[in-house]
Amino acid sequence: MRVIGVDPGSVVTGYGLVDGTQGQLSFIAAGVIRNPLALEYGDKLLNIYQHLCALIRKYAPDAMSLERSFVASNVQSAFRLGEVRALALLAAASCDLPLFEYAPAQVKLAVASHGRADKAQVKFMVRRALQLADEMALTDDAADALALALCHLGRARWSALASRRRKAERLVI
Amino acid sequence: MRVIGVDPGSVVTGYGLVDGTQGQLSFIAAGVIRNPLALEYGDKLLNIYQHLCALIRKYAPDAMSLERSFVASNVQSAFRLGEVRALALLAAASCDLPLFEYAPAQVKLAVASHGRADKAQVKFMVRRALQLADEMALTDDAADALALALCHLGRARWSALASRRRKAERLVI
Repeated sequence: MRVIGVDPGSVVTGYGLVDGTQGQLSFIAAGVIRNPLALEYGDKLLNIYQHLCALIRKYAPDAMSLERSFVASNVQSAFRLGEVRALALLAAASCDLPLFEYAPAQVKLAVASHGRADKAQVKFMVRRALQLADEMALTDDAADALALALCHLGRARWSALASRRRKAERLVI
Repeated sequence: MRVIGVDPGSVVTGYGLVDGTQGQLSFIAAGVIRNPLALEYGDKLLNIYQHLCALIRKYAPDAMSLERSFVASNVQSAFRLGEVRALALLAAASCDLPLFEYAPAQVKLAVASHGRADKAQVKFMVRRALQLADEMALTDDAADALALALCHLGRARWSALASRRRKAERLVI
């Protein structure tokens, strides 16, 4: 299963793609979408949307893992963040990609075994899980997006294991 | 000049199209985009976006007039409203449509000559300005969208008049 993680932000949107097959994790790609400053606001949104659609077409993931936002410093920030989140939701829906949302604490718990892990801890654990070379640059936003992908893969694996166990129990009965 | 007004809402999105030529206003169309309840949230956003793009293709407006949001009852409402606003911004940008944003008080002032006019007053003035027949049903959201279109047409007319006056002054000098 291939998952694209998306960490939407009003200035920088991070993305990360991970393959997870039978417990084996493979890094596929990661980066950020950053808008040229000169663009009008609507064109910035269009740029992010088109970039996300191009990533989905290029890497053909099976699911999208998106950060679920609960907090913003104020209502205006929430408007802006909501606007960028919509682009990820729209890109997933227009490409018929199943979407899963996770709260930041769920992602930290899944990746760093601690719901209040800081950015450096999350990045360290992402690097370790995906065996990324030290010389490979990884921004905070790209690391957060990879963590989202890993969170979904971990959850999907546990769901599959639980489902297999339930089936086995039914056979025993 | 033909303007599409869009009043984004997390449940219902209103739209209204008005032609304004040399002070003559003509009603073109108005209505609301309402999502089937059974749709997933991402598919609801896709439905609104596709509907807005279809309206732009069908009626070929020259500009979009959108409500600028400043307030929401809480951060969660702001996230939701931001998500729907993004679709209008995206539809305008993807169709290369100039976008103009107006605060609710600006719209009320332009249409009902009072920045704190209530919904009924706005609807009454919209009906009068566009000479809509009494039997024509008009929801609050569609009326708000028509008011946005009228607000932009009024502003565009004043800009054109001011520009002509400046030119005339230059000729006199």
